[in-house]
Amino acid sequence: MTTDPDPQQVRRPATDFSTARLEAFSDGVFAIAITLLVLDLKVPEPDTLDGQSLAGALAHQWPAYFAYLVSFLVIGIIWINHHAMCALARRVDRRTLFTNLLLLLTVSVIPYPTRMLAAYLTARNTDAHTAAAFYAATMVAMGAAFSLLFLAFTRDAQALHHPIPPAARRAAMRRFSVGGICYVATIALAYISPVAMLATHAALALYYCFDQLAPARRAS
Amino acid sequence: MTTDPDPQQVRRPATDFSTARLEAFSDGVFAIAITLLVLDLKVPEPDTLDGQSLAGALAHQWPAYFAYLVSFLVIGIIWINHHAMCALARRVDRRTLFTNLLLLLTVSVIPYPTRMLAAYLTARNTDAHTAAAFYAATMVAMGAAFSLLFLAFTRDAQALHHPIPPAARRAAMRRFSVGGICYVATIALAYISPVAMLATHAALALYYCFDQLAPARRAS
Amino acid sequence: MTTDPDPQQVRRPATDFSTARLEAFSDGVFAIAITLLVLDLKVPEPDTLDGQSLAGALAHQWPAYFAYLVSFLVIGIIWINHHAMCALARRVDRRTLFTNLLLLLTVSVIPYPTRMLAAYLTARNTDAHTAAAFYAATMVAMGAAFSLLFLAFTRDAQALHHPIPPAARRAAMRRFSVGGICYVATIALAYISPVAMLATHAALALYYCFDQLAPARRAS
Amino acid sequence: MTTDPDPQQVRRPATDFSTARLEAFSDGVFAIAITLLVLDLKVPEPDTLDGQSLAGALAHQWPAYFAYLVSFLVIGIIWINHHAMCALARRVDRRTLFTNLLLLLTVSVIPYPTRMLAAYLTARNTDAHTAAAFYAATMVAMGAAFSLLFLAFTRDAQALHHPIPPAARRAAMRRFSVGGICYVATIALAYISPVAMLATHAALALYYCFDQLAPARRAS
Repeated sequence: MTTDPDPQQVRRPATDFSTARLEAFSDGVFAIAITLLVLDLKVPEPDTLDGQSLAGALAHQWPAYFAYLVSFLVIGIIWINHHAMCALARRVDRRTLFTNLLLLLTVSVIPYPTRMLAAYLTARNTDAHTAAAFYAATMVAMGAAFSLLFLAFTRDAQALHHPIPPAARRAAMRRFSVGGICYVATIALAYISPVAMLATHAALALYYCFDQLAPARRAS
Repeated sequence: MTTDPDPQQVRRPATDFSTARLEAFSDGVFAIAITLLVLDLKVPEPDTLDGQSLAGALAHQWPAYFAYLVSFLVIGIIWINHHAMCALARRVDRRTLFTNLLLLLTVSVIPYPTRMLAAYLTARNTDAHTAAAFYAATMVAMGAAFSLLFLAFTRDAQALHHPIPPAARRAAMRRFSVGGICYVATIALAYISPVAMLATHAALALYYCFDQLAPARRAS
Repeated sequence: MTTDPDPQQVRRPATDFSTARLEAFSDGVFAIAITLLVLDLKVPEPDTLDGQSLAGALAHQWPAYFAYLVSFLVIGIIWINHHAMCALARRVDRRTLFTNLLLLLTVSVIPYPTRMLAAYLTARNTDAHTAAAFYAATMVAMGAAFSLLFLAFTRDAQALHHPIPPAARRAAMRRFSVGGICYVATIALAYISPVAMLATHAALALYYCFDQLAPARRAS
Repeated sequence: MTTDPDPQQVRRPATDFSTARLEAFSDGVFAIAITLLVLDLKVPEPDTLDGQSLAGALAHQWPAYFAYLVSFLVIGIIWINHHAMCALARRVDRRTLFTNLLLLLTVSVIPYPTRMLAAYLTARNTDAHTAAAFYAATMVAMGAAFSLLFLAFTRDAQALHHPIPPAARRAAMRRFSVGGICYVATIALAYISPVAMLATHAALALYYCFDQLAPARRAS
């Protein structure tokens, strides 16, 4: 192997992986999860309208549209941040692959709490709270998995294109923590107002738009 | 970083992204949205035929086939034009990623108005109009998102493989506008004839086949 | 552009596309269509078994498994042959993109006749024939689209990695035609025996395993 | 072709394929299969709760969550090992493509036994055993297909980046066989305790985490 002229081969030990397929597989899961959301927008059956107009029946479905939009935004933002994070790494080890799988689990399950919230957001009180808390808890799990993945990606300076100074890494983690605390708080909020919980997740997604990874990336 | 021998790294600042993953994720969403359409082609249940033959029941479903074909064509053409647009850019910034996400939202939602139209195209008058207007409005949103994305892609001449002359950019925008006005007009058409609205979208998709991006691309 | 040192840029005119994204999008559609097939394998509801065992209910579903396997095989083989065909081309033009879209239409619709056949293969006579003829007609359309795509890909010798001698191209077309005639014959067979029609498509798929593109590829 | 300056072209004979598209297509199927699992997590309809709380109804669905988690883990691990295996190869022949298709068949079908198990894990005794045995048999088929694919990938030393010593190949096969015997044993276990069968598959997936391909890869 020492005579191999391809520097790619020399740099990459046999137990490591390029990020290319990690990204391809993750992109697939993100893309499918975000697109499957549409399957839970139900068209009212013509014979169940009971004299109501289609427009009226659709207006009645606003919780489904609201939940759809927030979940679409959340998955889209995670994808963008995942993209930014992968760009830091030159190669990944097996542990990172598993942590990534954990993130994908929390992402690909999002359509489930989304359709639960769509069905129960305006339903009997306790059930609306249950559905909202389930949704918020999924987001907490997703945020935690993302933070773990950031740690896995940046743990080994050798695996990065450019080492991240410890201060920048801590700054990024602090920002993650702020988001994490907000996420956990939305579980409590779910028991006060499910609609406010959902609106808060829309706001948190927009907060993450402003590149929370920026400190780490800029420093590199 | 100035000593980095890889010119790719030198050219690309830390806050920008290559177009590769943008395209991979977008391709995924386009591919899934276009393929999910098939889930809304319903097979009549054997015990609901009521003595009618399967062939008769299928013929009765022509609105579902018609809506399926038009939506397939529309998503396919958007994909081709998205492909052509991405080929212009060397790298994208965060704002472009978000505008792209907006386009993907309008694309991935298309199966919803499609199945609504399939269910209501020949239904009670007002509801057919509502479903048709919903479909047309989705197309307007999609067209608008595509124009915004074109602006985002071509805003920064540095990010393009070859700068696009302002005149060519304006010509491309004029062509988009013509299409946009037609799209808006189909909302009105939905209240006159839902079938004509759908046929117009098939025609508009074919119009966009003739490479509306051509002026900008040829100039480059 | 003449001073551009990147030979890729020089070779590829502005109106042509690389095959990379064509393949990425097509791979996505193939992968989704082949995986969506599983959604039509229905699990019998526990309360609809009527004293029958689950094993008995599953055995009763053999048409669904048979149709699933044949359609999986068919889409898998098309993908392999699509792969082989794309490997011939260096770049594609807009016309090829559209012909490819036509092929993807016929591929992504396959889950629909598959679930129709699963529901009607053993149903009342006429309906079984209708469902079987619909299935066979979809395969004819798919085969025709594939032949058109082969013509589109190989039309322009400049766009290929290595020119294909006209004799080899004609040989490949002859082999396509043999398959095409068999495909059309299965529509007639559908009216005699739906099960034989399905078995024939399994056999035809296996026939296409033996690299029908071989003459064109070997010659290159 | 001998004057072709591109070493990629020289090395790859016309009847072989690069691994890139094999991986892209496989990634797509893996990503879709793993994400489709979420469609079988059913939200209880608000009007079917019968006075029960949503939380109670969800707790009642634990078999669905358990089966979901195990199947997600299984598909994720297969993907990681598939990734590791593809990294060994420089190019693949047609036979490998078909063996890969066989693996994809067993992977993409996994949502079916998963939803069957979710529906029957706690159902009438015999049916629970049937569903569990069906699930275990799918995993046996998947494991067998993976072993066949490993043989297909490593059969031709020329097609690998670095030849695998026969001893390392045999060691990898021995490890596969150990897993295979365990898989077959879970079919018997399905008739004793469906829940234990499912737990065993979770454990086996974790066993495969510890890089069963390691001997072959390290040796290269």
